[in-house]
Amino acid sequence: MTEDFEFERSEGNVSIIPLGGLGEFGLNMMVYETENDIIVIDTGFMLPNADMPGVDLILPDIHYLVERQEKIRGILLTHGHEDHIGALFYVLRQLDVPVYGTQLTLAIASGRLREYNVLSKAQLNTIAPGDTVELGDFSAEFLHVTHSIPDTVAIALRTPVGVIVHTGDFKFDMTPVDGKLSDIQTLARLGTEGVLLLVSDSTNAERPGQTPSERSIYGTVDTIFQKAEQKLFLCTFSSSLHRIQQFIDLAGIHRRLVAVTGRSLLNNIRTATELGYLNVNPDYLIDARDASMFKPHELVILSTGSQGEPRSALSLMALDNHPFLKMEQGDTVVISARIIPGNEKAIGNVVNHLLRRGAKIYHERNADVHVSGHGSSEDLKLMLNLLQPKFFMPMHGEYQNLMRHAELAESVGIASDNIKVAEDGELILLTPETCEVFGREGRSGRVFVDGKPEFELEDIVLRDRIQLSEDGIVVPIVVLHSDTGEGEQESAANSQEESRQQLEGESTENDAQISIHLTQSQGKVKKQIEIISRGFVYMDKSEELIEEAKEITRSVIESLSDEQKEEIEAVQDEIRAALRRFFSKQMQRTPLIFPVVMRV
Amino acid sequence: MTEDFEFERSEGNVSIIPLGGLGEFGLNMMVYETENDIIVIDTGFMLPNADMPGVDLILPDIHYLVERQEKIRGILLTHGHEDHIGALFYVLRQLDVPVYGTQLTLAIASGRLREYNVLSKAQLNTIAPGDTVELGDFSAEFLHVTHSIPDTVAIALRTPVGVIVHTGDFKFDMTPVDGKLSDIQTLARLGTEGVLLLVSDSTNAERPGQTPSERSIYGTVDTIFQKAEQKLFLCTFSSSLHRIQQFIDLAGIHRRLVAVTGRSLLNNIRTATELGYLNVNPDYLIDARDASMFKPHELVILSTGSQGEPRSALSLMALDNHPFLKMEQGDTVVISARIIPGNEKAIGNVVNHLLRRGAKIYHERNADVHVSGHGSSEDLKLMLNLLQPKFFMPMHGEYQNLMRHAELAESVGIASDNIKVAEDGELILLTPETCEVFGREGRSGRVFVDGKPEFELEDIVLRDRIQLSEDGIVVPIVVLHSDTGEGEQESAANSQEESRQQLEGESTENDAQISIHLTQSQGKVKKQIEIISRGFVYMDKSEELIEEAKEITRSVIESLSDEQKEEIEAVQDEIRAALRRFFSKQMQRTPLIFPVVMRV
Repeated sequence: MTEDFEFERSEGNVSIIPLGGLGEFGLNMMVYETENDIIVIDTGFMLPNADMPGVDLILPDIHYLVERQEKIRGILLTHGHEDHIGALFYVLRQLDVPVYGTQLTLAIASGRLREYNVLSKAQLNTIAPGDTVELGDFSAEFLHVTHSIPDTVAIALRTPVGVIVHTGDFKFDMTPVDGKLSDIQTLARLGTEGVLLLVSDSTNAERPGQTPSERSIYGTVDTIFQKAEQKLFLCTFSSSLHRIQQFIDLAGIHRRLVAVTGRSLLNNIRTATELGYLNVNPDYLIDARDASMFKPHELVILSTGSQGEPRSALSLMALDNHPFLKMEQGDTVVISARIIPGNEKAIGNVVNHLLRRGAKIYHERNADVHVSGHGSSEDLKLMLNLLQPKFFMPMHGEYQNLMRHAELAESVGIASDNIKVAEDGELILLTPETCEVFGREGRSGRVFVDGKPEFELEDIVLRDRIQLSEDGIVVPIVVLHSDTGEGEQESAANSQEESRQQLEGESTENDAQISIHLTQSQGKVKKQIEIISRGFVYMDKSEELIEEAKEITRSVIESLSDEQKEEIEAVQDEIRAALRRFFSKQMQRTPLIFPVVMRV
Repeated sequence: MTEDFEFERSEGNVSIIPLGGLGEFGLNMMVYETENDIIVIDTGFMLPNADMPGVDLILPDIHYLVERQEKIRGILLTHGHEDHIGALFYVLRQLDVPVYGTQLTLAIASGRLREYNVLSKAQLNTIAPGDTVELGDFSAEFLHVTHSIPDTVAIALRTPVGVIVHTGDFKFDMTPVDGKLSDIQTLARLGTEGVLLLVSDSTNAERPGQTPSERSIYGTVDTIFQKAEQKLFLCTFSSSLHRIQQFIDLAGIHRRLVAVTGRSLLNNIRTATELGYLNVNPDYLIDARDASMFKPHELVILSTGSQGEPRSALSLMALDNHPFLKMEQGDTVVISARIIPGNEKAIGNVVNHLLRRGAKIYHERNADVHVSGHGSSEDLKLMLNLLQPKFFMPMHGEYQNLMRHAELAESVGIASDNIKVAEDGELILLTPETCEVFGREGRSGRVFVDGKPEFELEDIVLRDRIQLSEDGIVVPIVVLHSDTGEGEQESAANSQEESRQQLEGESTENDAQISIHLTQSQGKVKKQIEIISRGFVYMDKSEELIEEAKEITRSVIESLSDEQKEEIEAVQDEIRAALRRFFSKQMQRTPLIFPVVMRV
């Protein structure tokens, strides 16, 4: 029995704790736990939204696992996408546990582990689809499923209470590029033997029909190759190896040389080729730096940047800032990737710039150049019907996707009482007869990373950033006389004049600082109030406003008694309140106000 | 001849200057100018993107018009949407010129003019579709077109060089809710007589086919009314009066009372009802505050908030924060509006929360509850074919939309040399034989508004906000001895201890300030270095880092000669550079560093 939920943990139950991926896209991480053992499936990260300024990466909070380290028998990876393996470096820094994954998955994961110096201590165990691994109370069987990256598996967990199938990401591609089908036979056999719980991918639950085969883009892109008169830029995710295979095949057929730009793309192509997941004729590959040596119609350039990422090759070319690749009149660009919600504006900007350079652009909204790697409604129903589970729990998606998947499950005959829509941090308790969801108890959370992952970003700092971005910051600086808590009032005329002169000299930098001169006249230090700001107003054009704000600060201090002035905090609070009222009334703005009060 | 472009302005030409709306959605404003006269069509605003923190509103820069005030014969409004009239208050503050618009358009525009105290001086002239107004060298004929708001017009301008048709927003709705068709007859007549230039709406140029009739949503919403067991929330834009009419009609048929929430919605319904554009039975309207007095299945609640705006009634209900309306298990929500790109995340959040409360949600991605007010490809081709203009210029849209519209024009036979894709600030010179585009000369621009429109937001302040939001701000404060430019080095041990105590008292506010005590020992003022920050690190947990940063600041100052220390700016630069290197190397973060150097 553990301290944070009230039930008897016994041989008769398995508890399931989603640490991420139930209530959002990305951050996929699921804990399965018995009395004796824990296994974890996937350790994904998530990329930030626009409302998380300065955040580079979001990782799952794993304190639940750190506290139970000795119970963990292994981390099982379903495939090599970052939303499933991107937090592995962070997890392995804190947990010394074995990792299981297919050859390609581990090869891709190793790159990041090396980058963060945890590869040497990582216990990586390669499994092949069809393998079964015993992990304490659990026995995990890996089943091949089709997805946008090769070597993807679903996991069938034999547990003391029954079989749980965790699909990972999947679709039922009937004509996969590498010829490897989803393991429908084993899924059907599991269904016949009896599945207690299905935990399944909800990413595309809201899409009707069946997701087309990866191969379906081939014809469209073939036609684009035929039409392309000059250079042809093909942009996709660096992990979309089936897509990349088709691009390389088409380049060969159309006798174009292939230049690859982007570090992750180069790495993945090299790794996948070495391991035999990609079939590339090296004679057709050239160094992207040599691209200008060839005729435009002899070239294909593979690149990333499909989401409008500002530092990607595509964005740099759009702005003509790329060191050696140029977008020119008559070139063709294929953005062969999903337009991820939230990225429309960034992608739109890149497209607009490419069009201004005279390029012809194909993307998923005007041509069939992309298909999803995730099953749509009919794929999800097929999975449900193959397994015919007693209980069902949707995963991978926002609440609306999970709910839609729940509706699909009901439509194929799963009893609605047996469908459990849970979210991160909830505890799902499974017995052979029951499946219950218990409330969130702070088991899960998110870790924000800005810069190096050693420096986790606190929620409060993020909130400050959002407030700073809304209306900027104002720092009033007050110097009080130390001996009496009182200083002589001084006309600011002279130093104002000085400040103004200083300002003009500095105005090119917009440092918005009025330099501070404490005047020592008649041998006595006097108080002087200065205000600096950033992101609030253009100081050069707002002298009157700032003078008025200084005046208000001055009168706040004058209104305080000597005792009150002894309390620095109280002085700060009074100044803050007065300036907040002033700026709000005057301009309807609410900058962050951060008074500095000094005694000299 | 004017000073900023090099051609002879004579009776033989008309120049056209887009001040907004060519290269973006919104901000629609077009200038038509002859030797003697200027007319302006539309004065729209634009709402900011997520990458413009703290910006409330974007207005077109109108200095081009202010400099030519005496030539302006009128501002012509096509319809009452904010992207066409939302900047009128700002324009009329600076220009004293007559305004022409239909009854409903002027009624809606008046609301904002009143709000900004410019209504009394505004010269508003009501025109009706079919009217012609003489404006100096121009003669403007107003033609009714169908759109999502009633009383919308296109404008046929007779000019010294020929006829220009400026469509405004339109679609060809063959079964409009108010029975008023687009004036196809007059458009056809103009085409027969000869149109020199068509300037046409590109919003939906990328959509194939024809935009369905506004009436097409009626059946879907009727079915939703039939299925709704509890309260029914219908959300749309406050200006979508045809939509609102259908909702009110359906409420009557299904015997539900209508509660309206949201000031803009209430205002527009009142205005449109008074003017006869909306047919509402007052017996069916109740005050939203009384909603709880009625049974849930007897109620329809009309609200705004379709874009996930955080302060809208819908968002408040989603979070159970609405003062008198509650979203409950079994309620139904129809979001009957376009999901505007950039708003997906916000709308998605609201939908997730509504689903958690047990509501059933319909939106344009899962039901036919919305149709656009803008014509798709086939509507645009019909407009082109009715008018058969010699020259064509697309407007209203980002560059990709304009380009797509250009392709459509070519597909119906406009000579590609006669199709001109221009952008804001360019000058289009039109003669009976030619149409040429001249480069941008700073004629156009954007004015950012944060808070009150009196306080325009400078670009540079916006850039500061973005930088502040990325990594926060660090303010090192250095006090130098005034007499010598040198102070005695002092152990910070004591004051550090004090600071720590202070900090603990303040930690709930995360004010992140280390209070400053300048120690006066042996009658001599000594230097002390303090660092404050916001949005950078959580100061309570980063004492070591901050101490190290102070140490670096201290050694920078020590390394400077007395003369160097005389130059406050140079001292600031040195500190800034050293700390920038330190934070970048240590944490890969680049906060804004803003040193304050004082002499005491």
